[in-house]
Amino acid sequence: MYRYLDKIKCPNDVKKLNSTEILALSGEIREFLIDNVSKTGGHLASNLGVVEVTLSLFKVFNLEKDKIVWDVGHQSYVHKILTGRKDKFETLRKYGGISGFPKRCESKYDSFDTGHSSTSISAALGMARARDILKKDNHVIAVIGDGALTGGMAFEALNDVGYSKTNLIIILNDNQMSISDNVGGLSTYLSKVRLDPGYNRLKNEINNTLNQTTVGKNIATSISKIKDSIKQLVVPSMLFEDMGLKYLGPIDGHNIDEISDMLYKAKKSDGPVIIHTITQKGKGYNFAEENPNKFHSIAPFDSCSGELCPSNTRTYSNAFGESLIDIAKEIDEVVAVTAAMPDGTGLKKFAKEFPHRFFDVGIAEQHATTLAAGMAKEGLRPVFAVYSTFLQRAYDQVLHDVCVQNLPVVFAIDRAGIVGEDGETHQGVFDISYLSHIPNLNIVAPKCLEEVKPILRWALMQDEPVAIRYPRGGDLTGIELNPIEKVEKGRWDLIRKGKDLVVIATGKMVQHSEAAIKLLGEEYNVALINATFIKPLDKNLLDDIAKDYKYVITIEDNVISGGLGREILSYFNSIGYKGKIVNLGYEDKFIQHGDLSTLYKLNKLDITSIKDEIVSILE
Amino acid sequence: MYRYLDKIKCPNDVKKLNSTEILALSGEIREFLIDNVSKTGGHLASNLGVVEVTLSLFKVFNLEKDKIVWDVGHQSYVHKILTGRKDKFETLRKYGGISGFPKRCESKYDSFDTGHSSTSISAALGMARARDILKKDNHVIAVIGDGALTGGMAFEALNDVGYSKTNLIIILNDNQMSISDNVGGLSTYLSKVRLDPGYNRLKNEINNTLNQTTVGKNIATSISKIKDSIKQLVVPSMLFEDMGLKYLGPIDGHNIDEISDMLYKAKKSDGPVIIHTITQKGKGYNFAEENPNKFHSIAPFDSCSGELCPSNTRTYSNAFGESLIDIAKEIDEVVAVTAAMPDGTGLKKFAKEFPHRFFDVGIAEQHATTLAAGMAKEGLRPVFAVYSTFLQRAYDQVLHDVCVQNLPVVFAIDRAGIVGEDGETHQGVFDISYLSHIPNLNIVAPKCLEEVKPILRWALMQDEPVAIRYPRGGDLTGIELNPIEKVEKGRWDLIRKGKDLVVIATGKMVQHSEAAIKLLGEEYNVALINATFIKPLDKNLLDDIAKDYKYVITIEDNVISGGLGREILSYFNSIGYKGKIVNLGYEDKFIQHGDLSTLYKLNKLDITSIKDEIVSILE
Repeated sequence: MYRYLDKIKCPNDVKKLNSTEILALSGEIREFLIDNVSKTGGHLASNLGVVEVTLSLFKVFNLEKDKIVWDVGHQSYVHKILTGRKDKFETLRKYGGISGFPKRCESKYDSFDTGHSSTSISAALGMARARDILKKDNHVIAVIGDGALTGGMAFEALNDVGYSKTNLIIILNDNQMSISDNVGGLSTYLSKVRLDPGYNRLKNEINNTLNQTTVGKNIATSISKIKDSIKQLVVPSMLFEDMGLKYLGPIDGHNIDEISDMLYKAKKSDGPVIIHTITQKGKGYNFAEENPNKFHSIAPFDSCSGELCPSNTRTYSNAFGESLIDIAKEIDEVVAVTAAMPDGTGLKKFAKEFPHRFFDVGIAEQHATTLAAGMAKEGLRPVFAVYSTFLQRAYDQVLHDVCVQNLPVVFAIDRAGIVGEDGETHQGVFDISYLSHIPNLNIVAPKCLEEVKPILRWALMQDEPVAIRYPRGGDLTGIELNPIEKVEKGRWDLIRKGKDLVVIATGKMVQHSEAAIKLLGEEYNVALINATFIKPLDKNLLDDIAKDYKYVITIEDNVISGGLGREILSYFNSIGYKGKIVNLGYEDKFIQHGDLSTLYKLNKLDITSIKDEIVSILE
Repeated sequence: MYRYLDKIKCPNDVKKLNSTEILALSGEIREFLIDNVSKTGGHLASNLGVVEVTLSLFKVFNLEKDKIVWDVGHQSYVHKILTGRKDKFETLRKYGGISGFPKRCESKYDSFDTGHSSTSISAALGMARARDILKKDNHVIAVIGDGALTGGMAFEALNDVGYSKTNLIIILNDNQMSISDNVGGLSTYLSKVRLDPGYNRLKNEINNTLNQTTVGKNIATSISKIKDSIKQLVVPSMLFEDMGLKYLGPIDGHNIDEISDMLYKAKKSDGPVIIHTITQKGKGYNFAEENPNKFHSIAPFDSCSGELCPSNTRTYSNAFGESLIDIAKEIDEVVAVTAAMPDGTGLKKFAKEFPHRFFDVGIAEQHATTLAAGMAKEGLRPVFAVYSTFLQRAYDQVLHDVCVQNLPVVFAIDRAGIVGEDGETHQGVFDISYLSHIPNLNIVAPKCLEEVKPILRWALMQDEPVAIRYPRGGDLTGIELNPIEKVEKGRWDLIRKGKDLVVIATGKMVQHSEAAIKLLGEEYNVALINATFIKPLDKNLLDDIAKDYKYVITIEDNVISGGLGREILSYFNSIGYKGKIVNLGYEDKFIQHGDLSTLYKLNKLDITSIKDEIVSILE
């Protein structure tokens, strides 16, 4: 079907092609990507942006021994296509299929698993140091976007790289975007570099001038120093060269010859090199070039029109964004913070409505958290909207900067619970465990979309930190739940009465439980309680439950270890409860990619499994 | 007693003094610091280094409304002395006394609590943004060391500051050190700046030259650009100005007039300003100037000789460092990583013995963790030695970069459990909770110094990640425990037999428990088990315990929530155990500063309290 692509059986086959053929191959790869991702969904724009960078890497390096670390990893599709996984692309991101991120278990050519941002330089430096100590001779290359470079750990790694002088190649894939538009001083700096093509010309002129003309005596005495300095100055390399790296670029990241030339140079260099390539997210597909945000991570779409299948699902992100706008109209102190995710977290409209009360800090969850702490300390009411999996990076800041001082920061934790197709690096199944042992923190979960607003409003009225967790997507259809009328700290609500057994569930699991109990039918008499507050527990209600029920099931969309169920078990133990308690949640292992319903079923948190669990306890 | 110091009743009293008087005051403050810290112990060198910076801040700013955020905060003693806490200095770091870090609950002049590194710019930016939104007019100043600037979140904050143009003053307190000697490309850059006094002179010469002499035609056409660029170049400001900050300096950080001048300039500036001050850690006290590491955080000492009271205590840090050297001699792949703590973690000798297998990455726990993951992936056996409280900052990297890939990284977690005088920001009481829910991770604790080596050796032989946690200080005197002969995954050991009740303890709590049981005497028959493995549990042994015992006490030097006791309780629940289980550990609140024995007692983990708990259960 594809003249060149079909011939690539192993990475080094790319080397056999001449320039014209590689150019043709790049076109075929784009066609393949658009065709496949339109059917499966996935990350499109970032992959279209790295076609030439990837091909150049395969041309110049020997992947049988050289190692590429893809930062974040959602741009590794081209790499996967070229390393024997082309025919598996229809299974992309499906359960049992290939992952949307590099996976060592999939291919020996995937040298390091990634998923979260800004890890590649650290990992690559570790691999390069291992090479040196073990006296091997392979190259190590980290490919990192300008967005990922705003994450602090990338800077920590650059600082170490620049000092140690280890041989390492860093490709700065500068597409002027994070997931959304890029922000920050670094981004401004890179723009200056990109937008001034005079820089390189100027450099040569000055060198010539200094060599040929007579210059003032004062300058002449320092001439060698100045030349050296002017080189640094005029080539836009300073920030990186100041850190101790050799800088090459900026170059056109869609010109394979130009990139390859630089890679050959870098390969021969001693010490760390950073190659600055300018790429375009969505390159080669009009709709994606025009709207790279939309095509960053996308559901299946029509490849001819670029249109998504229409979806009427109201999501928790929508509900959060809209609620925050309404509340911000009433409370002037409310401000919103995001770490490069205004779209994903539902804050886009808020940003438009309140531009001076909205802060996108780049991919920088640590800073976002402590920034919010500073704001709260001085009287604002900041809401940091963040995915469960990304808040992991700010665990210390939540504890040390927010909770030690008991500051009123609200964490709006989106994508709590399993998220599906993005897989093990992105599942939001740890937040209850990493947050609930932190003193002073309240943790709340709406059981349905209509509860987002009252809970958010309540949270913004407290003088202490509150985390609100809610899932990806929207509500189950066909389940009607009444939103609580009044949010009270530590107060749970009774969804349905029953005598045989009580289910205590939280968040989306309340919906699954309600559906399961409905399925059971009349012969069972099961109560359902919504643990609105994951922390603090409703101890009064638990005391009543201990008196009235012999069987308790707890259900949460989180790992069991360190979760809500354990806290409830512990309280029951402390009051000497002797009934049977079953904690449902995720077992102690990472959860792979797949669609939500398959994953719920496999982990026994789907409606049928919950029903079966109730039956098995009662029989 | 002190001519000037005794007159400072409120911060603005500093403004009343003329230059000569302030100079005299600075001398008195040094005398006061040396005198007091020699008696109480504490952070000395860093405070001696900021006497003039602090006095200048008090002279130029109005602390009734302006806010200073002290990064890390161990250099806030001078601030405390000048804000009404001089007379409480004999209680420094003692239980109920003043803290060694800024505490809002102590004084309205402490604007933000700190303790961990690199948070100040984020917090200060949040406070500055709150000021702008709430239309106040105070200044906000962050004081951050060059060491703390290597922490990634400081860079995340700088990136945001440079972009947003918020009015904010950052003082870079450049003392060329982290806790130990500084490392990294940034440090090299700052050294270049410091060591070349020609920079500023050169700048003026070039400006004059360019204005007065005829220069070549090619340059002339670009003259304004070059001037602008040369200014950037020749003033060593580029790295920060590239990020979008105005840079002032470098200046002598012990010259109050010079610092004050810069502060006045910064006060009038629009947008963010960074002032680069060069200071000397330990300034004004010979012994500390010569050996700033020793006087960083020090026990009481003789102020005339600079000598510490001799201590023969063998610590866990010593045992770890020595063991690692021995093992590294046998296993070539073993390497060590530290985040700026070669002394504190006991790695100093290792660094000397194996300079090419030792990596100090600066204050950068995130990078250290993922670096180790990269090393492990390529066949090395890295050990990251880190304090429990500082590993909090790498929670995401432990989970996402090490454990998802199940890589054989060893975390040597020092200062696990309460650490005492450093207080709530430094207590290592969360690590079991933030680590034990992470799949694939093994967690082990030696019960005595002699177990450090066999456990470390075992850890380094595994093909999966292992965390080893051990406390500050050494073993209890008078308790003899036999080290286990063979470490086996998930295998606990029986310390003493008994029939009435079983105590399951881990780490140092095994020693407390053994002492408590000894105290009980013959009339009680209590068993003691060492939970060598916090994860995985010894389920076989737990099955036996469930059969044989009606009473179980678990004891750990960690918060109860998410701790070992909860895991044991959960296992017992799953097998239907009906006996009584009591989980001992820390309650759900932050633990203040104080000496270890007071803190153990208050939290009922001292020997007597454990004894009493056993008695109360059995009676």
